[in-house]
Amino acid sequence: MTLVTVERKILEKNDQIAEKFRNHLRSKNIFSINMLSSPGAGKTTIIERTVESLNSKMKISVIVGDIQTENDANRINKFGNPVVQIITHGACHLDAQLVKDAFENIEKHKTDFLIIENVGNLVCPAGFDLGEDEKVVVTSTTEGDDKPLKYPSAFRNASVMIINKVDLLPYVNCSIDLLRKNALIINPELRIFEISCQTNAGLDNWYEWINSKIKS
Amino acid sequence: MTLVTVERKILEKNDQIAEKFRNHLRSKNIFSINMLSSPGAGKTTIIERTVESLNSKMKISVIVGDIQTENDANRINKFGNPVVQIITHGACHLDAQLVKDAFENIEKHKTDFLIIENVGNLVCPAGFDLGEDEKVVVTSTTEGDDKPLKYPSAFRNASVMIINKVDLLPYVNCSIDLLRKNALIINPELRIFEISCQTNAGLDNWYEWINSKIKS
Repeated sequence: MTLVTVERKILEKNDQIAEKFRNHLRSKNIFSINMLSSPGAGKTTIIERTVESLNSKMKISVIVGDIQTENDANRINKFGNPVVQIITHGACHLDAQLVKDAFENIEKHKTDFLIIENVGNLVCPAGFDLGEDEKVVVTSTTEGDDKPLKYPSAFRNASVMIINKVDLLPYVNCSIDLLRKNALIINPELRIFEISCQTNAGLDNWYEWINSKIKS
Repeated sequence: MTLVTVERKILEKNDQIAEKFRNHLRSKNIFSINMLSSPGAGKTTIIERTVESLNSKMKISVIVGDIQTENDANRINKFGNPVVQIITHGACHLDAQLVKDAFENIEKHKTDFLIIENVGNLVCPAGFDLGEDEKVVVTSTTEGDDKPLKYPSAFRNASVMIINKVDLLPYVNCSIDLLRKNALIINPELRIFEISCQTNAGLDNWYEWINSKIKS
Protein backbone atom coordinates (compact mmCIF):
# COMPACT_ATOMS: atom_id res chain seq x y z
CA MET A 1 0.00 0.00 0.00
CA THR A 2 1.30 3.44 -0.94
CA LEU A 3 0.60 6.70 0.88
CA VAL A 4 0.18 10.11 -0.84
CA THR A 5 -0.56 13.28 1.17
CA VAL A 6 -1.83 16.77 0.32
CA GLU A 7 -1.83 20.01 2.24
CA ARG A 8 -4.82 22.15 3.07
CA LYS A 9 -5.55 25.85 2.74
CA ILE A 10 -7.19 27.76 5.54
CA LEU A 11 -9.30 30.85 5.17
CA GLU A 12 -8.42 33.44 7.77
CA LYS A 13 -10.67 36.24 6.59
CA ASN A 14 -13.72 34.13 7.39
CA ASP A 15 -12.67 33.87 11.02
CA GLN A 16 -12.50 37.64 11.38
CA ILE A 17 -16.02 38.12 10.00
CA ALA A 18 -17.25 35.27 12.19
CA GLU A 19 -15.79 36.78 15.34
CA LYS A 20 -17.45 40.12 14.64
CA PHE A 21 -20.80 38.45 13.91
CA ARG A 22 -20.55 36.38 17.11
CA ASN A 23 -20.03 39.53 19.16
CA HIS A 24 -23.03 41.10 17.43
CA LEU A 25 -25.26 38.13 18.25
CA ARG A 26 -24.07 38.02 21.86
CA SER A 27 -24.70 41.74 22.30
CA LYS A 28 -28.32 40.98 21.44
CA ASN A 29 -28.49 38.00 23.84
CA ILE A 30 -28.93 35.55 20.97
CA PHE A 31 -27.70 32.01 21.59
CA SER A 32 -26.65 30.43 18.27
CA ILE A 33 -25.72 26.96 17.04
CA ASN A 34 -24.24 25.74 13.74
CA MET A 35 -25.43 22.21 12.86
CA LEU A 36 -23.33 20.08 10.56
CA SER A 37 -23.58 16.50 9.38
CA SER A 38 -23.51 14.16 6.40
CA PRO A 39 -26.48 14.34 4.04
CA GLY A 40 -29.37 12.41 5.53
CA ALA A 41 -28.18 12.34 9.15
CA GLY A 42 -31.38 14.10 10.18
CA LYS A 43 -30.51 17.77 10.83
CA THR A 44 -33.77 19.13 9.43
CA THR A 45 -35.93 16.67 11.35
CA ILE A 46 -34.13 17.57 14.59
CA ILE A 47 -34.77 21.26 13.87
CA GLU A 48 -38.45 20.56 13.17
CA ARG A 49 -38.85 18.75 16.51
CA THR A 50 -36.87 21.43 18.36
CA VAL A 51 -38.80 24.38 16.93
CA GLU A 52 -42.13 22.66 17.55
CA SER A 53 -41.22 21.81 21.16
CA LEU A 54 -39.52 25.06 22.19
CA ASN A 55 -41.58 27.67 20.31
CA SER A 56 -43.72 28.34 23.38
CA LYS A 57 -40.64 29.04 25.53
CA MET A 58 -38.40 31.18 23.33
CA LYS A 59 -38.13 33.08 20.03
CA ILE A 60 -36.40 30.83 17.48
CA SER A 61 -35.05 31.88 14.07
CA VAL A 62 -33.52 29.53 11.51
CA ILE A 63 -30.99 29.96 8.70
CA VAL A 64 -30.88 26.95 6.36
CA GLY A 65 -28.06 26.23 3.93
CA ASP A 66 -28.67 24.03 0.93
CA ILE A 67 -26.97 23.31 -2.35
CA GLN A 68 -30.02 23.44 -4.50
CA THR A 69 -33.55 23.15 -3.14
CA GLU A 70 -35.74 25.05 -0.69
CA ASN A 71 -37.19 21.80 0.68
CA ASP A 72 -35.64 22.17 4.15
CA ALA A 73 -36.79 25.75 4.65
CA ASN A 74 -40.27 24.74 3.50
CA ARG A 75 -40.33 22.01 6.14
CA ILE A 76 -39.44 24.51 8.88
CA ASN A 77 -41.53 27.34 7.48
CA LYS A 78 -44.79 25.70 8.60
CA PHE A 79 -44.15 26.76 12.21
CA GLY A 80 -44.26 30.45 11.28
CA ASN A 81 -40.77 31.26 12.62
CA PRO A 82 -38.39 33.61 10.77
CA VAL A 83 -36.52 31.39 8.26
CA VAL A 84 -33.87 32.32 5.70
CA GLN A 85 -32.89 29.81 3.02
CA ILE A 86 -29.38 30.17 1.59
CA ILE A 87 -28.97 28.30 -1.70
CA THR A 88 -25.28 27.89 -2.47
CA HIS A 89 -25.66 26.60 -6.08
CA GLY A 90 -23.08 23.88 -5.65
CA ALA A 91 -20.85 25.47 -3.01
CA CYS A 92 -20.10 22.94 -0.31
CA HIS A 93 -20.40 24.95 2.90
CA LEU A 94 -21.69 28.15 4.44
CA ASP A 95 -19.30 30.93 5.41
CA ALA A 96 -19.58 33.73 7.94
CA GLN A 97 -20.30 36.49 5.41
CA LEU A 98 -23.18 34.50 3.90
CA VAL A 99 -24.74 33.86 7.29
CA LYS A 100 -24.24 37.44 8.43
CA ASP A 101 -25.94 38.72 5.24
CA ALA A 102 -28.74 36.19 5.60
CA PHE A 103 -29.37 37.17 9.21
CA GLU A 104 -29.94 40.81 8.21
CA ASN A 105 -33.13 39.66 6.51
CA ILE A 106 -34.66 38.47 9.79
CA GLU A 107 -32.94 40.76 12.27
CA LYS A 108 -36.09 42.83 12.77
CA HIS A 109 -37.69 39.84 14.53
CA LYS A 110 -36.68 39.22 18.14
CA THR A 111 -34.53 36.10 18.42
CA ASP A 112 -33.43 34.22 21.55
CA PHE A 113 -32.13 31.14 19.75
CA LEU A 114 -30.64 31.12 16.24
CA ILE A 115 -30.27 27.74 14.53
CA ILE A 116 -27.97 27.62 11.50
CA GLU A 117 -28.34 24.42 9.45
CA ASN A 118 -25.22 23.95 7.35
CA VAL A 119 -25.00 22.22 3.96
CA GLY A 120 -25.04 18.41 4.31
CA ASN A 121 -21.32 17.71 4.26
CA LEU A 122 -19.11 16.33 7.02
CA VAL A 123 -15.94 17.79 5.51
CA CYS A 124 -15.90 21.39 4.31
CA PRO A 125 -18.26 23.07 6.81
CA ALA A 126 -16.01 21.91 9.67
CA GLY A 127 -13.35 24.50 8.85
CA PHE A 128 -15.67 27.50 8.68
CA ASP A 129 -16.60 29.37 11.85
CA LEU A 130 -19.97 31.04 11.21
CA GLY A 131 -19.93 33.12 14.38
CA GLU A 132 -22.02 30.59 16.31
CA ASP A 133 -21.74 29.95 20.05
CA GLU A 134 -21.71 26.17 19.66
CA LYS A 135 -20.98 23.86 16.76
CA VAL A 136 -23.24 20.78 16.85
CA VAL A 137 -22.19 17.78 14.78
CA VAL A 138 -24.94 15.26 14.02
CA THR A 139 -24.07 11.67 13.18
CA SER A 140 -26.55 8.85 12.78
CA THR A 141 -26.21 5.22 13.79
CA THR A 142 -26.65 4.15 10.16
CA GLU A 143 -23.34 5.79 9.23
CA GLY A 144 -21.41 3.37 11.45
CA ASP A 145 -19.19 4.00 14.47
CA ASP A 146 -15.97 5.07 12.71
CA LYS A 147 -16.94 8.52 11.40
CA PRO A 148 -15.21 10.58 14.13
CA LEU A 149 -11.89 8.97 13.18
CA LYS A 150 -12.43 9.41 9.44
CA TYR A 151 -13.76 13.00 9.55
CA PRO A 152 -11.95 14.31 12.64
CA SER A 153 -12.25 18.06 11.97
CA ALA A 154 -16.01 18.08 12.31
CA PHE A 155 -15.83 16.26 15.64
CA ARG A 156 -12.78 18.17 16.91
CA ASN A 157 -14.28 21.58 16.18
CA ALA A 158 -17.73 20.79 17.57
CA SER A 159 -18.64 21.20 21.23
CA VAL A 160 -21.73 18.98 20.96
CA MET A 161 -22.39 15.69 19.17
CA ILE A 162 -25.88 14.38 18.55
CA ILE A 163 -26.11 10.66 17.82
CA ASN A 164 -29.36 10.41 15.86
CA LYS A 165 -31.49 7.41 14.84
CA VAL A 166 -30.76 5.33 17.96
CA ASP A 167 -34.04 3.49 17.20
CA LEU A 168 -32.21 1.81 14.28
CA LEU A 169 -29.40 0.35 16.44
CA PRO A 170 -30.82 -3.22 16.34
CA TYR A 171 -30.62 -3.23 12.52
CA VAL A 172 -27.29 -1.56 11.73
CA ASN A 173 -23.63 -2.35 12.16
CA CYS A 174 -22.87 0.32 14.75
CA SER A 175 -21.70 0.08 18.36
CA ILE A 176 -22.80 3.17 20.23
CA ASP A 177 -20.07 2.58 22.83
CA LEU A 178 -17.40 2.52 20.12
CA LEU A 179 -18.92 5.58 18.43
CA ARG A 180 -18.78 7.50 21.73
CA LYS A 181 -15.25 6.27 22.38
CA ASN A 182 -14.03 7.25 18.89
CA ALA A 183 -15.62 10.69 19.25
CA LEU A 184 -14.03 11.26 22.66
CA ILE A 185 -10.62 10.21 21.35
CA ILE A 186 -10.87 13.05 18.82
CA ASN A 187 -12.46 15.49 21.27
CA PRO A 188 -12.59 14.59 24.99
CA GLU A 189 -14.69 17.70 25.75
CA LEU A 190 -17.58 16.70 23.49
CA ARG A 191 -21.04 16.81 25.07
CA ILE A 192 -23.04 13.90 23.63
CA PHE A 193 -26.80 13.47 23.16
CA GLU A 194 -28.28 10.17 21.97
CA ILE A 195 -31.65 10.75 20.34
CA SER A 196 -34.33 9.41 18.04
CA CYS A 197 -36.76 11.71 16.25
CA GLN A 198 -38.96 8.66 15.58
CA THR A 199 -39.41 7.59 19.22
CA ASN A 200 -38.47 11.00 20.79
CA ALA A 201 -35.89 9.21 22.95
CA GLY A 202 -33.34 11.61 24.42
CA LEU A 203 -34.89 14.77 22.99
CA ASP A 204 -35.80 16.15 26.43
CA ASN A 205 -32.11 16.28 27.39
CA TRP A 206 -31.36 18.17 24.19
CA TYR A 207 -34.15 20.69 24.84
CA GLU A 208 -32.99 21.13 28.43
CA TRP A 209 -29.46 21.93 27.28
CA ILE A 210 -30.77 24.59 24.87
CA ASN A 211 -32.97 26.05 27.61
CA SER A 212 -29.98 26.37 29.93
CA LYS A 213 -28.21 28.50 27.32
CA ILE A 214 -30.98 31.06 26.77
CA LYS A 215 -30.30 34.34 28.53
CA SER A 216 -33.60 36.20 28.38
CA MET B 1 -38.86 33.12 3.84
CA THR B 2 -35.93 34.92 2.19
CA LEU B 3 -33.67 33.56 -0.54
CA VAL B 4 -29.93 34.31 -0.87
CA THR B 5 -27.84 32.80 -3.69
CA VAL B 6 -24.11 32.39 -4.34
CA GLU B 7 -22.15 31.59 -7.45
CA ARG B 8 -19.74 28.71 -7.90
CA LYS B 9 -16.23 28.49 -9.29
CA ILE B 10 -15.28 25.73 -11.67
CA LEU B 11 -11.82 24.30 -12.13
CA GLU B 12 -11.01 23.83 -15.79
CA LYS B 13 -7.44 22.71 -15.47
CA ASN B 14 -8.59 19.57 -13.66
CA ASP B 15 -10.68 18.54 -16.67
CA GLN B 16 -7.68 18.73 -18.99
CA ILE B 17 -5.58 16.48 -16.73
CA ALA B 18 -8.53 14.11 -16.34
CA GLU B 19 -9.04 13.81 -20.10
CA LYS B 20 -5.38 12.95 -20.64
CA PHE B 21 -5.42 10.39 -17.81
CA ARG B 22 -8.61 8.81 -19.19
CA ASN B 23 -6.97 8.37 -22.60
CA HIS B 24 -3.95 6.82 -20.88
CA LEU B 25 -6.12 4.30 -18.98
CA ARG B 26 -8.10 3.43 -22.10
CA SER B 27 -4.94 2.89 -24.12
CA LYS B 28 -4.07 0.21 -21.56
CA ASN B 29 -7.56 -1.36 -21.71
CA ILE B 30 -8.28 -0.38 -18.10
CA PHE B 31 -11.94 0.14 -17.22
CA SER B 32 -12.22 2.65 -14.37
CA ILE B 33 -14.92 3.89 -12.02
CA ASN B 34 -15.04 6.80 -9.55
CA MET B 35 -17.29 6.03 -6.57
CA LEU B 36 -18.80 8.91 -4.62
CA SER B 37 -21.26 9.11 -1.75
CA SER B 38 -21.99 10.59 1.65
CA PRO B 39 -19.91 9.33 4.55
CA GLY B 40 -21.23 5.95 5.66
CA ALA B 41 -23.20 5.06 2.52
CA GLY B 42 -21.14 1.91 2.17
CA LYS B 43 -18.58 2.50 -0.60
CA THR B 44 -15.78 0.56 1.10
CA THR B 45 -17.99 -2.43 1.89
CA ILE B 46 -19.18 -2.53 -1.75
CA ILE B 47 -15.54 -2.48 -2.88
CA GLU B 48 -14.66 -5.29 -0.46
CA ARG B 49 -17.49 -7.47 -1.81
CA THR B 50 -16.62 -6.61 -5.42
CA VAL B 51 -12.90 -7.32 -5.10
CA GLU B 52 -13.56 -10.58 -3.26
CA SER B 53 -16.09 -11.74 -5.87
CA LEU B 54 -14.32 -10.66 -9.06
CA ASN B 55 -10.66 -11.25 -8.18
CA SER B 56 -10.70 -14.64 -9.92
CA LYS B 57 -12.00 -13.11 -13.16
CA MET B 58 -9.96 -9.92 -13.59
CA LYS B 59 -7.05 -7.86 -12.26
CA ILE B 60 -8.42 -5.19 -9.92
CA SER B 61 -6.52 -2.20 -8.51
CA VAL B 62 -7.93 0.29 -6.01
CA ILE B 63 -7.18 3.95 -5.21
CA VAL B 64 -8.79 5.08 -1.95
CA GLY B 65 -9.26 8.71 -0.97
CA ASP B 66 -9.68 9.64 2.68
CA ILE B 67 -9.45 12.76 4.78
CA GLN B 68 -7.45 11.30 7.59
CA THR B 69 -7.15 7.57 8.20
CA GLU B 70 -5.88 4.55 6.32
CA ASN B 71 -8.74 2.41 7.61
CA ASP B 72 -10.38 1.93 4.20
CA ALA B 73 -7.19 0.89 2.44
CA ASN B 74 -6.45 -1.53 5.29
CA ARG B 75 -9.87 -3.11 4.79
CA ILE B 76 -9.19 -3.65 1.08
CA ASN B 77 -5.53 -4.53 1.51
CA LYS B 78 -6.34 -7.99 2.88
CA PHE B 79 -7.18 -9.26 -0.61
CA GLY B 80 -3.62 -8.65 -1.85
CA ASN B 81 -4.62 -6.34 -4.71
CA PRO B 82 -2.60 -3.20 -5.57
CA VAL B 83 -4.02 -0.45 -3.33
CA VAL B 84 -3.02 3.21 -3.02
CA GLN B 85 -4.31 5.29 -0.13
CA ILE B 86 -4.53 9.05 -0.72
CA ILE B 87 -4.85 11.01 2.53
CA THR B 88 -6.04 14.53 1.76
CA HIS B 89 -5.51 16.02 5.27
CA GLY B 90 -8.80 17.84 5.26
CA ALA B 91 -9.27 18.43 1.53
CA CYS B 92 -12.80 17.52 0.57
CA HIS B 93 -12.38 15.68 -2.74
CA LEU B 94 -9.89 13.97 -5.02
CA ASP B 95 -8.69 15.67 -8.19
CA ALA B 96 -7.29 14.26 -11.42
CA GLN B 97 -3.66 15.14 -10.69
CA LEU B 98 -3.78 13.35 -7.33
CA VAL B 99 -5.26 10.22 -8.85
CA LYS B 100 -2.87 10.26 -11.79
CA ASP B 101 0.12 10.56 -9.39
CA ALA B 102 -1.29 7.84 -7.14
CA PHE B 103 -1.78 5.48 -10.08
CA GLU B 104 1.90 5.74 -11.00
CA ASN B 105 2.66 3.83 -7.79
CA ILE B 106 0.75 0.76 -8.96
CA GLU B 107 1.09 1.05 -12.72
CA LYS B 108 3.65 -1.77 -12.85
CA HIS B 109 0.86 -4.22 -11.92
CA LYS B 110 -1.51 -5.28 -14.71
CA THR B 111 -4.96 -3.78 -14.16
CA ASP B 112 -8.22 -4.58 -15.95
CA PHE B 113 -10.48 -2.73 -13.55
CA LEU B 114 -9.50 0.37 -11.55
CA ILE B 115 -11.75 1.38 -8.66
CA ILE B 116 -11.31 4.91 -7.32
CA GLU B 117 -13.05 5.48 -3.98
CA ASN B 118 -13.55 9.21 -3.48
CA VAL B 119 -13.66 11.06 -0.15
CA GLY B 120 -17.03 10.61 1.59
CA ASN B 121 -18.78 13.77 0.45
CA LEU B 122 -21.81 14.12 -1.79
CA VAL B 123 -20.97 17.70 -2.77
CA CYS B 124 -17.41 18.57 -3.80
CA PRO B 125 -16.29 15.37 -5.53
CA ALA B 126 -19.20 15.71 -7.98
CA GLY B 127 -17.51 18.54 -9.88
CA PHE B 128 -14.14 16.84 -10.34
CA ASP B 129 -13.59 14.51 -13.26
CA LEU B 130 -10.84 12.07 -12.26
CA GLY B 131 -10.44 10.56 -15.72
CA GLU B 132 -12.72 7.64 -14.94
CA ASP B 133 -14.93 5.88 -17.49
CA GLU B 134 -17.99 5.89 -15.23
CA LYS B 135 -18.95 7.88 -12.18
CA VAL B 136 -20.88 5.73 -9.70
CA VAL B 137 -22.90 7.53 -7.02
CA VAL B 138 -23.84 5.44 -3.99
CA THR B 139 -26.80 6.39 -1.84
CA SER B 140 -28.23 4.34 0.99
CA THR B 141 -31.85 3.89 2.00
CA THR B 142 -31.08 5.35 5.45
CA GLU B 143 -30.36 8.74 3.88
CA GLY B 144 -33.96 9.08 2.69
CA ASP B 145 -35.41 9.43 -0.80
CA ASP B 146 -34.78 13.15 -1.41
CA LYS B 147 -31.00 13.22 -1.83
CA PRO B 148 -30.94 13.37 -5.68
CA LEU B 149 -32.97 16.60 -5.51
CA LYS B 150 -30.84 18.13 -2.76
CA TYR B 151 -27.42 17.16 -4.16
CA PRO B 152 -28.19 17.14 -7.89
CA SER B 153 -24.63 17.47 -9.25
CA ALA B 154 -23.56 14.08 -7.93
CA PHE B 155 -26.57 12.39 -9.53
CA ARG B 156 -26.46 14.45 -12.74
CA ASN B 157 -22.77 13.75 -13.37
CA ALA B 158 -22.94 10.04 -12.54
CA SER B 159 -23.85 7.38 -15.07
CA VAL B 160 -24.63 4.75 -12.42
CA MET B 161 -26.46 4.94 -9.10
CA ILE B 162 -26.19 2.21 -6.48
CA ILE B 163 -28.96 2.18 -3.88
CA ASN B 164 -27.31 0.43 -0.94
CA LYS B 165 -28.74 -1.03 2.29
CA VAL B 166 -32.06 -2.16 0.78
CA ASP B 167 -32.24 -4.66 3.67
CA LEU B 168 -33.04 -1.67 5.95
CA LEU B 169 -36.08 -0.51 3.94
CA PRO B 170 -38.59 -1.87 6.49
CA TYR B 171 -37.07 0.31 9.23
CA VAL B 172 -36.39 3.65 7.55
CA ASN B 173 -38.41 6.49 6.12
CA CYS B 174 -37.48 5.94 2.46
CA SER B 175 -39.58 5.03 -0.57
CA ILE B 176 -37.40 3.30 -3.11
CA ASP B 177 -39.86 4.21 -5.88
CA LEU B 178 -39.63 7.89 -4.96
CA LEU B 179 -35.83 7.69 -4.67
CA ARG B 180 -35.63 6.19 -8.19
CA LYS B 181 -38.09 8.77 -9.50
CA ASN B 182 -36.16 11.68 -7.94
CA ALA B 183 -32.88 10.37 -9.34
CA LEU B 184 -34.34 9.95 -12.83
CA ILE B 185 -35.77 13.50 -12.75
CA ILE B 186 -32.21 14.76 -12.26
CA ASN B 187 -30.66 12.27 -14.69
CA PRO B 188 -32.96 10.17 -16.91
CA GLU B 189 -29.98 8.16 -18.24
CA LEU B 190 -28.96 6.83 -14.82
CA ARG B 191 -28.42 3.07 -14.59
CA ILE B 192 -29.66 1.95 -11.18
CA PHE B 193 -28.62 -1.03 -9.02
CA GLU B 194 -30.44 -1.86 -5.79
CA ILE B 195 -28.19 -3.84 -3.47
CA SER B 196 -27.49 -4.99 0.07
CA CYS B 197 -24.01 -5.98 1.21
CA GLN B 198 -25.61 -7.69 4.23
CA THR B 199 -27.91 -10.03 2.28
CA ASN B 200 -25.99 -9.85 -1.06
CA ALA B 201 -29.25 -8.87 -2.80
CA GLY B 202 -28.62 -7.36 -6.23
CA LEU B 203 -24.85 -7.74 -6.17
CA ASP B 204 -24.85 -10.21 -9.07
CA ASN B 205 -26.32 -7.59 -11.39
CA TRP B 206 -23.61 -5.15 -10.35
CA TYR B 207 -20.86 -7.71 -10.98
CA GLU B 208 -22.38 -8.58 -14.36
CA TRP B 209 -22.31 -4.93 -15.41
CA ILE B 210 -18.62 -4.63 -14.45
CA ASN B 211 -17.86 -7.84 -16.32
CA SER B 212 -19.52 -6.49 -19.47
CA LYS B 213 -17.17 -3.49 -19.41
CA ILE B 214 -13.88 -5.41 -19.17
CA LYS B 215 -12.05 -5.56 -22.48
CA SER B 216 -9.37 -8.19 -21.97
